[in-house]
Amino acid sequence: MEKIRLEPTLALPMPVTLVGAMVEGKPNFMAAAWVTRVNVKPPLIGVAVNHRQYTGQGIRETGIFSLCLPGPDAVAKTDYCGLVSGRKVDKAALFDVFYGELKTAPMIRECPLCLEVRLTQTVELPVDNFYIGEIVAGWADAAILTDGAPDVTKYRPLVLTMPDNRYWSLGESVADAWSVGKVFKKGESE
Amino acid sequence: MEKIRLEPTLALPMPVTLVGAMVEGKPNFMAAAWVTRVNVKPPLIGVAVNHRQYTGQGIRETGIFSLCLPGPDAVAKTDYCGLVSGRKVDKAALFDVFYGELKTAPMIRECPLCLEVRLTQTVELPVDNFYIGEIVAGWADAAILTDGAPDVTKYRPLVLTMPDNRYWSLGESVADAWSVGKVFKKGESE
Repeated sequence: MEKIRLEPTLALPMPVTLVGAMVEGKPNFMAAAWVTRVNVKPPLIGVAVNHRQYTGQGIRETGIFSLCLPGPDAVAKTDYCGLVSGRKVDKAALFDVFYGELKTAPMIRECPLCLEVRLTQTVELPVDNFYIGEIVAGWADAAILTDGAPDVTKYRPLVLTMPDNRYWSLGESVADAWSVGKVFKKGESE
Repeated sequence: MEKIRLEPTLALPMPVTLVGAMVEGKPNFMAAAWVTRVNVKPPLIGVAVNHRQYTGQGIRETGIFSLCLPGPDAVAKTDYCGLVSGRKVDKAALFDVFYGELKTAPMIRECPLCLEVRLTQTVELPVDNFYIGEIVAGWADAAILTDGAPDVTKYRPLVLTMPDNRYWSLGESVADAWSVGKVFKKGESE
């Protein structure tokens, strides 16, 4: 099939998170979906944040941030955190905020799963900074665990797609990873 | 609700991609889900790849790579590309490989959407390298476009979750982004 050339496109399914940090001594949260794990051990994760963002100021000031995963019930509050700046509005007032081991990583009790992160490196890019940090601990509701591990069918993470700008929940489980591909190993010497 | 402390966890919904690069003059592909956009303009994207990966060798050698998004039909081939090394197996033989503007970014015709990327920066981390590059062009099947833009309901990207290690398709559209949160703006001075 012939391919059609497109300008650079944003078409990736992306994890919806709320990034938390203390800014000028107060908790603040922003919505972010440019998030990925970047290293296995230590467990490093990165998030891209526009230079102007108030939350980014807090990450740089304190060297500490959080990543919380909202479920479908929190989609409107999450979206709101991407619409307004903490310079103008106290977004933390929307949530029941709690703290964990790092003491200054504000997290959201309504989110079924939160991560505390210690900044290890900032990659400066033209418009965004990519903040890389080590995940120090996770905090989860008992209700989302199966055998002690977060169960995706219970915590129901949201996914963002652009440029259509929609939040999605996960649908069907298509296949098992590191497994379904074994069918192509037939006939190979292992 | 009380939170339960977990060890650092991988629980994020992640985009499933195939990363392509020329290695020792031949096209090679690996499965990767530690991928995110990191800068708006220029359009930068990053992918974390273990130091040992053969594809990473090609990215460093050529400064060019691709990211292709497989649909559900290609899930087994995609998974296979995460199970075996290009040092031992010619994974490109599984696919109809094509090239675009950069000439040396191998892409997969069976994938409805592919991106060509020029490496701009390598962030060296303990186990992985995080390769950041500029998206130069996208290549899409006509069948996945609506009004000229990739339509997520047509190209049907896959999402990986860990540690349960499952591939998912997207389910219901939960809400519109940069929109549903406006409900909380009531009463604010704008």
